[in-house]
Amino acid sequence: MLADILIENAIILTLNPKKTIWKQGSIVVKNGDIYDIGSNEDIGAQYKSKKIINASGKIVMPGLVNTHTHAAMTLFRGIADDLPLKQWLEEYIWPLEKKYINIETVRKGTLLALAEMIRSGITVFNDMYFFEDEVARMAKQVGVRAVIGEGIINFPTPNSKTIKEELNYTEKLLKKWKEDPLITVAVAPHAPYTCSDSLLIASKELARKYQELLHIHVSETKQEVAEMQKKHNCSPVEYLEKLGFLEGGHVIMAHAVHLSPKDIKIMAKHDVGVSHNPESNMKLASGIAPIPELLRSGVSVGLGTDGASSNNNLNLFGEMNTTAKLHKVFQMDPQIMKAQAVVEMATIEGARALGLDDKIGSLENGKRADIILVNTNVPHSCSRSLTRSRKYDKKSRT
Amino acid sequence: MLADILIENAIILTLNPKKTIWKQGSIVVKNGDIYDIGSNEDIGAQYKSKKIINASGKIVMPGLVNTHTHAAMTLFRGIADDLPLKQWLEEYIWPLEKKYINIETVRKGTLLALAEMIRSGITVFNDMYFFEDEVARMAKQVGVRAVIGEGIINFPTPNSKTIKEELNYTEKLLKKWKEDPLITVAVAPHAPYTCSDSLLIASKELARKYQELLHIHVSETKQEVAEMQKKHNCSPVEYLEKLGFLEGGHVIMAHAVHLSPKDIKIMAKHDVGVSHNPESNMKLASGIAPIPELLRSGVSVGLGTDGASSNNNLNLFGEMNTTAKLHKVFQMDPQIMKAQAVVEMATIEGARALGLDDKIGSLENGKRADIILVNTNVPHSCSRSLTRSRKYDKKSRT
Repeated sequence: MLADILIENAIILTLNPKKTIWKQGSIVVKNGDIYDIGSNEDIGAQYKSKKIINASGKIVMPGLVNTHTHAAMTLFRGIADDLPLKQWLEEYIWPLEKKYINIETVRKGTLLALAEMIRSGITVFNDMYFFEDEVARMAKQVGVRAVIGEGIINFPTPNSKTIKEELNYTEKLLKKWKEDPLITVAVAPHAPYTCSDSLLIASKELARKYQELLHIHVSETKQEVAEMQKKHNCSPVEYLEKLGFLEGGHVIMAHAVHLSPKDIKIMAKHDVGVSHNPESNMKLASGIAPIPELLRSGVSVGLGTDGASSNNNLNLFGEMNTTAKLHKVFQMDPQIMKAQAVVEMATIEGARALGLDDKIGSLENGKRADIILVNTNVPHSCSRSLTRSRKYDKKSRT
Repeated sequence: MLADILIENAIILTLNPKKTIWKQGSIVVKNGDIYDIGSNEDIGAQYKSKKIINASGKIVMPGLVNTHTHAAMTLFRGIADDLPLKQWLEEYIWPLEKKYINIETVRKGTLLALAEMIRSGITVFNDMYFFEDEVARMAKQVGVRAVIGEGIINFPTPNSKTIKEELNYTEKLLKKWKEDPLITVAVAPHAPYTCSDSLLIASKELARKYQELLHIHVSETKQEVAEMQKKHNCSPVEYLEKLGFLEGGHVIMAHAVHLSPKDIKIMAKHDVGVSHNPESNMKLASGIAPIPELLRSGVSVGLGTDGASSNNNLNLFGEMNTTAKLHKVFQMDPQIMKAQAVVEMATIEGARALGLDDKIGSLENGKRADIILVNTNVPHSCSRSLTRSRKYDKKSRT
């Protein structure tokens, strides 16, 4: 067999079920898939390859999974900082979107986001915005995997005059991109507080019909939860369960900051995925999601950047850093969120939260070759080898 | 007058008392000092210069002030992650230091730290470690300003067999570097819980004699405060006040996480500076310092990275990002820690906390030319100009 690419001499984090790490490893890529993986010794001699990459001194790992973003919102980066979510959305973002967002600006904003995401090692992003057909086209053009979800909401959007048009546009996406190897379509109602019952149910029906993901913002702020309590006497998660929204199919909830123990039980029961967006939740002072509790309950949690305007970047390495530290200090326990768990959230757990873990999220035979190489030959990744005695080598490192 | 360097076409953040921003500005440098600064129009034609830097598209601002670090601890980066401070120090760091720290390893670790700090825009760092004469030598060699403080502590250090030797070494530093333009010497007793009364008082005497800064860790963990309460029936800050440690002279306290309202009053009264190290405090689950309260009380607060082993990097831009977001979510108020306040903490307020604001921390005539150029022509600093209408241009941005 002649391989397309052979990567050798790498430190490989597979993120496979055994969390195998190869200190001197090789990966064989054929037709965009991982054909074989193992130690240099086991793999090296077996394969000829068109292209050989010497990854000496580099960490080779699965591409990072950005489980929630609004890519084109790079257009609004740095606008209206230091504001709470409600005011930020209603007084700035929504009026700006009405004024400026069209297929042209979505294209430019998405391309800018793609440049930034590629630079931070992201190989798949779960997008919720408008003109998502154009987002898919751009992602395909630059070779980044995307889950696209056209925003469905109770009022007109830059792309749709009516709710009917919003649903029709999503159905067109579902048909058009059904068999695409790089693009997955999600049905993306914005949030329980911005979508009527009938709109949530219609979204659910569409997702069921095409067997695709539902992508929705849930319980991002205390205010949202309080308003739902007042209006429907239950939490947003309970409300979605009552509507049948969580039944028999995969749902990814972005944020999930304010959850009761009952909410977490419901989420685990329905195998809901969560996109944890710590930097966005910090910037907008939304709160700190109960991630250790969700993980203990078996809920899949991935990491997300949210849009650049509420972050203000699209860097998942930064989000990993924040995740590892934020939960430690919030729960005053330095062991509550270990480095390894965070790397899993940014890769295999994120893929699981999106229902894509059969294809990506780890480096295993038969999975797509969504691979990144991380250069460790930079000052901030260096320590002196003198301290790497056997005793301390056993400890975990970031 | 023939200038040494003329920087032109820059977006200049002066951080002067009026917080002047020049959108098309120039800076004239002569003999390492800022000779003149203003708009291109006002400055450009007046000066000839040996060297001209076209800073078009770049933000020109004061070099960042790292108010607390242990530079050579880059040697221990990534060792013993996910542990609490006490265990981290007693079971890992102290034994490792005993085994590995000597003048040779301090030199290497400091050089690695200097490379990393320069890359993240740091032009001055306040160091507390061992063999600080060598730290000063390395800083001078690469051209970075340093405040050096030899760690003084109740037990033998890698550099000193006895407490007397520790104090003698510091006095030698004070004499040797007294008139150096780049190096300032601080007297650096480790912490109230690791230094006896007499050692704290001896340190104070040294600082008083040479009119220099005192640099000390204070109230980093709850445990430290509780133990002080038990032993001396007061807080660490009250204890230091009782000893006369805060009297008539400048003290910078690193961390200052667990403070009572009374502590804050004492700190304001004695014009104490604080080094806020949010990422270190998060990683070690020490807690979140009451920075908005300190700022409201008029205490100068700068930012610090702490050592790489408790961070795990030496990046003050990252620390700014974390500071802006952490306090917002901790106090559930997106307006409590604005972008501008954070930039001030990383520059002029940091300089003030170190007692160096007569020399550095802002770009003003007569101050040292500790200047950095920040490239904004990168994806994560871009948004589309289309949204920069007059209306939104007025809002603050990060």
